[in-house]
Amino acid sequence: MYDFLNRLFPICRSITGDGVRETLKIIQKDIPIKIFEVPSGTKVFDWTVPKEWNIKDAYILDEEGNKIIDFKKNNLHVLGYSVPVDKYLELDELQEHLYSLEQQPDAIPYITSYYRERWGFCISQKQRNQLKKGKYRVYIDSELKDGHLTYGELLIPGETEEEIFLSTYICHPSMANNELSGPVVTTYLAKWIINTSRKYTYRIVFIPETIGSITYLSNNLNIMKKNIIAGFNITCVGDDRTYSYLPSREGNSLADKVALNILSYKHPDFVSYTYLDRGSDERQYCSPGIDLPVASVMRSKYATYPEYHTSLDDLDLVTPSGLFGSYDLLKDCIKLLERNEKYKINCLGEPQLGKYGLYPTISTKETRNNVRDMMNFIAYADGINDLVDISNKIDVPVWQLYSLIEKLKEHGLLSIVEKT
Amino acid sequence: MYDFLNRLFPICRSITGDGVRETLKIIQKDIPIKIFEVPSGTKVFDWTVPKEWNIKDAYILDEEGNKIIDFKKNNLHVLGYSVPVDKYLELDELQEHLYSLEQQPDAIPYITSYYRERWGFCISQKQRNQLKKGKYRVYIDSELKDGHLTYGELLIPGETEEEIFLSTYICHPSMANNELSGPVVTTYLAKWIINTSRKYTYRIVFIPETIGSITYLSNNLNIMKKNIIAGFNITCVGDDRTYSYLPSREGNSLADKVALNILSYKHPDFVSYTYLDRGSDERQYCSPGIDLPVASVMRSKYATYPEYHTSLDDLDLVTPSGLFGSYDLLKDCIKLLERNEKYKINCLGEPQLGKYGLYPTISTKETRNNVRDMMNFIAYADGINDLVDISNKIDVPVWQLYSLIEKLKEHGLLSIVEKT
Amino acid sequence: MYDFLNRLFPICRSITGDGVRETLKIIQKDIPIKIFEVPSGTKVFDWTVPKEWNIKDAYILDEEGNKIIDFKKNNLHVLGYSVPVDKYLELDELQEHLYSLEQQPDAIPYITSYYRERWGFCISQKQRNQLKKGKYRVYIDSELKDGHLTYGELLIPGETEEEIFLSTYICHPSMANNELSGPVVTTYLAKWIINTSRKYTYRIVFIPETIGSITYLSNNLNIMKKNIIAGFNITCVGDDRTYSYLPSREGNSLADKVALNILSYKHPDFVSYTYLDRGSDERQYCSPGIDLPVASVMRSKYATYPEYHTSLDDLDLVTPSGLFGSYDLLKDCIKLLERNEKYKINCLGEPQLGKYGLYPTISTKETRNNVRDMMNFIAYADGINDLVDISNKIDVPVWQLYSLIEKLKEHGLLSIVEKT
Repeated sequence: MYDFLNRLFPICRSITGDGVRETLKIIQKDIPIKIFEVPSGTKVFDWTVPKEWNIKDAYILDEEGNKIIDFKKNNLHVLGYSVPVDKYLELDELQEHLYSLEQQPDAIPYITSYYRERWGFCISQKQRNQLKKGKYRVYIDSELKDGHLTYGELLIPGETEEEIFLSTYICHPSMANNELSGPVVTTYLAKWIINTSRKYTYRIVFIPETIGSITYLSNNLNIMKKNIIAGFNITCVGDDRTYSYLPSREGNSLADKVALNILSYKHPDFVSYTYLDRGSDERQYCSPGIDLPVASVMRSKYATYPEYHTSLDDLDLVTPSGLFGSYDLLKDCIKLLERNEKYKINCLGEPQLGKYGLYPTISTKETRNNVRDMMNFIAYADGINDLVDISNKIDVPVWQLYSLIEKLKEHGLLSIVEKT
Repeated sequence: MYDFLNRLFPICRSITGDGVRETLKIIQKDIPIKIFEVPSGTKVFDWTVPKEWNIKDAYILDEEGNKIIDFKKNNLHVLGYSVPVDKYLELDELQEHLYSLEQQPDAIPYITSYYRERWGFCISQKQRNQLKKGKYRVYIDSELKDGHLTYGELLIPGETEEEIFLSTYICHPSMANNELSGPVVTTYLAKWIINTSRKYTYRIVFIPETIGSITYLSNNLNIMKKNIIAGFNITCVGDDRTYSYLPSREGNSLADKVALNILSYKHPDFVSYTYLDRGSDERQYCSPGIDLPVASVMRSKYATYPEYHTSLDDLDLVTPSGLFGSYDLLKDCIKLLERNEKYKINCLGEPQLGKYGLYPTISTKETRNNVRDMMNFIAYADGINDLVDISNKIDVPVWQLYSLIEKLKEHGLLSIVEKT
Repeated sequence: MYDFLNRLFPICRSITGDGVRETLKIIQKDIPIKIFEVPSGTKVFDWTVPKEWNIKDAYILDEEGNKIIDFKKNNLHVLGYSVPVDKYLELDELQEHLYSLEQQPDAIPYITSYYRERWGFCISQKQRNQLKKGKYRVYIDSELKDGHLTYGELLIPGETEEEIFLSTYICHPSMANNELSGPVVTTYLAKWIINTSRKYTYRIVFIPETIGSITYLSNNLNIMKKNIIAGFNITCVGDDRTYSYLPSREGNSLADKVALNILSYKHPDFVSYTYLDRGSDERQYCSPGIDLPVASVMRSKYATYPEYHTSLDDLDLVTPSGLFGSYDLLKDCIKLLERNEKYKINCLGEPQLGKYGLYPTISTKETRNNVRDMMNFIAYADGINDLVDISNKIDVPVWQLYSLIEKLKEHGLLSIVEKT
């Protein structure tokens, strides 16, 4: 995954343009996503798909002709969606088009101006402080014109039409935790899902943030509302510092329930945010009237770590183990979704487990301890509690229950209650 | 308000009689209350309207003819509802008719005997200790006979028949926090309501406590149960020491919800009582079968401050700022009731606030912070949460949401969900 | 009760056999239980009634013919359900049939092998350590053959068919807290119930644990599900160390509600277990599909005290006051069940208690304190709250409310809301 991330890192993505296309095409080599193009000007809910933006080059030259800012060295240097410019100006004038962070003097900030036409350069505060009076040449070879918004979609059919939804975004230039970790982990999850037997259908999308999710929802809302039983917004899943959780709007969806159960046993020290801390596509997926059951399980959440939205969110911040931990966590969530049935014990009273070889034949002080998990599972397998409920009530991780469920099913002791 | 309280202070009120009439007439100069007279003997629920009590004078003379106790100096000196008396008696006999407080030797206690005929004098413990053996003349020129119970009512019509109910009592002699602060603040609230555009109809009553609320309920129960959506019992709203809250019986009425929201943002250190601490007319309004949505927001609650029901509850205890704070708090509660709609955002997904000029056109790390309250309001404006719910969920005082709501309405982004 | 327990102590009980019969016959002298015999081989839910086991004698002789283990001295010495044996063997072979507790070297453990045929002796670790190499004679004169499972049942009719259920078990040999305290306290409760006026019918069973409750449920499930409103599993009610509570599966039955109310006022330092700590017949009574409202109130719970299931659970561990405390506690629970109605005050507003002589005629600062409990009871007597709810809400023990309820009923102020 880390190598894959390295390959995608240099590409200059934005909410539209060839950077997105190139990214999706690389992903397409691994998983069979379908690529969609939506024309600029298309009405999507309260929004309009913007013009397409592409950029070839950009730099600032000082009086001696030194290239003091070079887009080709770091694509964060250009204000996202900058209109073309090619002129000479004094430092004072230039300053009005420069963006830097006083608090992080070494970082180039990531700044965009999607919905008003501007041009500008992002620069470290340190470099900015060293600029001398004089004439500078600013040059941006970009193009902002009617075109398309591009996104990728992968539908992996299952036994049922009910869907699990995974969404990630591909609209940020060279930054690693937010966002490249998202599409990378999602690609590998998709590869694993394709090769695994499954009950549910999977809807997986690679979209630009906000305008992309709005566009996608606008085109697919009915089927999504009908079929999606749980979903995850996959972002900020690459660093190694913490695990975190951000709920759906009401925090009571199946996605929340599953995420909280898995996190509480697998990473009990995870950080729990509220919906007030949101900031990604759950803003659309969980908005009034849309109300999809979408939660986020992350590593360091956007807007909480110092490198966020700067050039410091780089290939050092994200680690192979950071990516793998997220991948593994999301796999566990999906495995649980696949197995989360309402189980019901088939007899009245406790079954006589001894006759199935499931209970010690000798009764000592400790007898019940040895079969405690099984007895507790049976006690709550009432056809009303689902597997997550039982795990929570008997305080046993679901992965310790899977084999036990198989044993009970083998002996004909357990049924699955069909949804009505 | 403080001046108004000063004018009402000297009047000797009781649950019936000319003190009540005089008080109501003074109030009537400010607001157009209607005055009702209910005959003694009238059955009201489980109770009977008592005889009317009036008093002209009362004193105790010592052997030298010194007026050692004088009703005209402090009307608390006479046991409320004392029958007439005019005789000489020895100190021992007199003692049986004297009431004082050992723990508060300087205070004249406030004591009544409404429902059994007695006579008596209330006196400071200090003065009582100084009484010498000898003959005393006791004189009470009172009258207890069939008459009326008097109360005032003001109905301020609104756009809808739904009512907000304010109740206060006018049956205590010269005490300031409990009770004169109540009718004073209520009078000023009524003046403000009359001069404000409003949606709801207001039912405002000035009644004697207990027998008055029972009488009023007995005459108006059906319409009150049908129309009242929230109400406040206004008492102990004059001192400067604390704010406090006492819930309705189940604590889950709209009045509770509004009071708790406003108090938690305006006076977060307010004291929260339970319904077990009740002691005023909520006892009737919230009784089984009546079940009106009535809560109390107060300053120092009756029966919790040392001066309560003594001569120390005087014009020093109550302050202009104490009264104004309560007035302002209750105004905020009423304003919120008037605006507490279920709001619903008109589009799916987040609106594109930028195009209405409501969102920064440049996206930096901090962009969302600046519009956080608006985004959060929108996220919960789902037509299910009302304004109080949203305020509680997004942790923003309602008064910071009012202008924001206006902006969203101006742009056609927000609807009000009609009650069904 | 302690004497009664002493008489039952020496009998060698098991889940079947003459020890159970003898125990039930002694109980039958005190209360008119009916004794039932269920044949071996009978299918009961997922179980089969096992063969009947009886034992006359058992011992181990050393080479010198010394009886080093003697069943007649302590019936715990024989592994429960041991098949007959009479042979000589070397110490090494003998060791495979010995059971002891390394952690409790002085205790003879209590061990059984109901559902697989074995023989064995239970012995203190201390004694085991002293065994010398050599030949030993082991002798068990037992019989394991088709017979019956025996249990006792007492139905005490009430005014209504609705039942209160008491269950206790009689399958353990000489141990005092677990289990003899159970049948002893239950016998005395039954005697008290018979001699008390009552509303409910009482179903009281003395059964072997697990297989007995399963057998009993299998025969009586429909009527039990229809009639039982609350029940208690009576076990471990004899020592003096603590009180404890173990809930029904969901913890929200009437039995739970009553037990928690009584314990919280009578023994507020009781230990509260969860259903995960269960280990007695609630495992069957509360299993999915059975779902009877059965909770346990105990002294030291099985499996939590060091003497549990060893020879140390003896006549010193259980005390007269230990037994009496449990008896008294369960009586209080039953008294509350008998009186736990939904009360409703008959008038609107507060009643004028003064006219019934229930309220002070003089109103001072403290007036309401003196009648606080009555006023609070009235405030919540709304026909929705039952007596336990009211007690919990007004924080007054139910036994302080009984006389108050009688007073209000005498004056016609209180009704009972019939169940619908």
